[in-house]
Amino acid sequence: MLASGRRRLLTALLQAQRWPFQPSRDMRLVQFQAPHLTGPHLGLESGNGGGVINLNAFDPTLPKTMVEFLEQGEAALSVAGRALAAQLPVLPRSEVTFLAPVTRPDKVVCVGMNYVDHCKEQNVPVPKEPIIFSKFASSVVGPYDEVVLPPESQEVDWEVELAVVIGKKGKHIKATDAMAHVAGFTVAHDVSARDWQMRRNGKQWLLGKTFDTFCPLGPALVTKDSVADPHNLKICCRVNGEVVQSSNTNQMVFKTEELIAWISQFVTLYPGDIILTGTPPGVGVFRKPPVFLKMCVCAHACRTKGLTASRPTLLQKGDEVQCEIEELGVIINKVV
Amino acid sequence: MLASGRRRLLTALLQAQRWPFQPSRDMRLVQFQAPHLTGPHLGLESGNGGGVINLNAFDPTLPKTMVEFLEQGEAALSVAGRALAAQLPVLPRSEVTFLAPVTRPDKVVCVGMNYVDHCKEQNVPVPKEPIIFSKFASSVVGPYDEVVLPPESQEVDWEVELAVVIGKKGKHIKATDAMAHVAGFTVAHDVSARDWQMRRNGKQWLLGKTFDTFCPLGPALVTKDSVADPHNLKICCRVNGEVVQSSNTNQMVFKTEELIAWISQFVTLYPGDIILTGTPPGVGVFRKPPVFLKMCVCAHACRTKGLTASRPTLLQKGDEVQCEIEELGVIINKVV
Repeated sequence: MLASGRRRLLTALLQAQRWPFQPSRDMRLVQFQAPHLTGPHLGLESGNGGGVINLNAFDPTLPKTMVEFLEQGEAALSVAGRALAAQLPVLPRSEVTFLAPVTRPDKVVCVGMNYVDHCKEQNVPVPKEPIIFSKFASSVVGPYDEVVLPPESQEVDWEVELAVVIGKKGKHIKATDAMAHVAGFTVAHDVSARDWQMRRNGKQWLLGKTFDTFCPLGPALVTKDSVADPHNLKICCRVNGEVVQSSNTNQMVFKTEELIAWISQFVTLYPGDIILTGTPPGVGVFRKPPVFLKMCVCAHACRTKGLTASRPTLLQKGDEVQCEIEELGVIINKVV
Repeated sequence: MLASGRRRLLTALLQAQRWPFQPSRDMRLVQFQAPHLTGPHLGLESGNGGGVINLNAFDPTLPKTMVEFLEQGEAALSVAGRALAAQLPVLPRSEVTFLAPVTRPDKVVCVGMNYVDHCKEQNVPVPKEPIIFSKFASSVVGPYDEVVLPPESQEVDWEVELAVVIGKKGKHIKATDAMAHVAGFTVAHDVSARDWQMRRNGKQWLLGKTFDTFCPLGPALVTKDSVADPHNLKICCRVNGEVVQSSNTNQMVFKTEELIAWISQFVTLYPGDIILTGTPPGVGVFRKPPVFLKMCVCAHACRTKGLTASRPTLLQKGDEVQCEIEELGVIINKVV
């Protein structure tokens, strides 16, 4: 009985810790669903890894999608600020489903070869100007959603990336004005089918980058004021617990401001647009020998031994990829 | 007085011809604006080149954007069908502004090297599988909007294309089922900055294809039932009245059905998604010598003589590009 009582006390203490969670002063905007709510809602993650405050319950006039929220600019952000300051009920994390913090953006812009150490790894010169490609918005999934290995690819690879979310429309934005157009930052996994990216489709990278589920995002859009320095954050990727990428965003060749200036020469940036800023070293394709998420049946054993099969054959289901960036959080995607 | 009376009679006759316009049985869906209406509306073009029937006035419960209209599927289309059969007032063409028939699609998918005669022109083999690239939705403009020559490019080129508009969501769609996922067809101008497409940006085509205004579309989404055979339509492009491209969609390497089957291996297609199916021969870059929309100050004289300046220097404003496809209509875009 005593042991059982202790267990109950421990459970109660753990639950109390989670709900109500001590709210953080950082603004961590999320899109979420919950069984008692109809459709997607906007919320605030109550600290990195905490529960969720329902922003639409706090102010029913707020829109329910992040793109529309961002389109409302400072007015909407100030409502979220008031919600953050108030003592509001927090939905336990276990009771909500986190969606990607932005869905249906006008664009998902991606930057290639944007880490000094990633260029060294490939033994290629650091680019003199950003290399831009894209994913379709239809590839975006939530922070804990599954990544579906397509039967069409044998070489699916991981890439953790810092993602910038645009908050204000602009064209020909100067680097010195660029941060005024940023809403905040989030974690992205730029899942990449290397066979399609590098050898098929006339060497246009798009198809290899844009299979459905190839862009997990989240868990939260952390507003720029809540991030001490977006260009000095530890960034890492773990596959089945093993660290495969570990770097710092200070290794980025072109920083957020330069990227926004560059991209907005070509296109108008809109609220909700997402820029994936490139990946650090450690991706599978540049390992010797290469390692992919999808490989032979002995994939896991091969990987932990630093080996891989000479000819990938079967789907390796069950891999778990964790992409983490300091201050922003971690996204965890099971490969199925 | 007699002369003045005749003029008035002539004017009255012309106006009578335009309004009410004899409605066509073809369903030509448009998005439009008018001075007396707030924001974009859905309409029916009353025959190729005719006035516009306001669908939102006919049924105020219809959505006001084409993407939402298409998401409602057959139910919305049947309302449009009833509107077409009724004797409804027609807004004269001069009183409306035509928008692109689809705005803010989830994707604009493009196909490269998809005309047999275009491959011959380049002396390259016909591709064995489709080559897929993309434009951002932010490049879409209306059928009579201006194409803005970016100062960042010296080699802006024309490409008339048949565009397919998706009407029904699908993944891994079989070619035999593909037409069930098509809403209809429209005319596209795949404006292309060859310098950025072919030599810059790590040879990823995206940037050269996606400058703002680089995707004029329209004038109407002509529903599939209204098109006799989408793969047997005359297709042509005129620059300042001179025919520069003239072919037939029967020259397409991969037809609509095969393209949908191919693309939907990678991505889920959503209502409103647009597929630009490739361009026939006659683009500027493969002329000998090359001809571009943006070239030396003597551009027009050079072009008509079949010559071009060795070094493009200044913006050639005022070129007018007409892209026309049989049964679908013509889009006319001034280059500024």
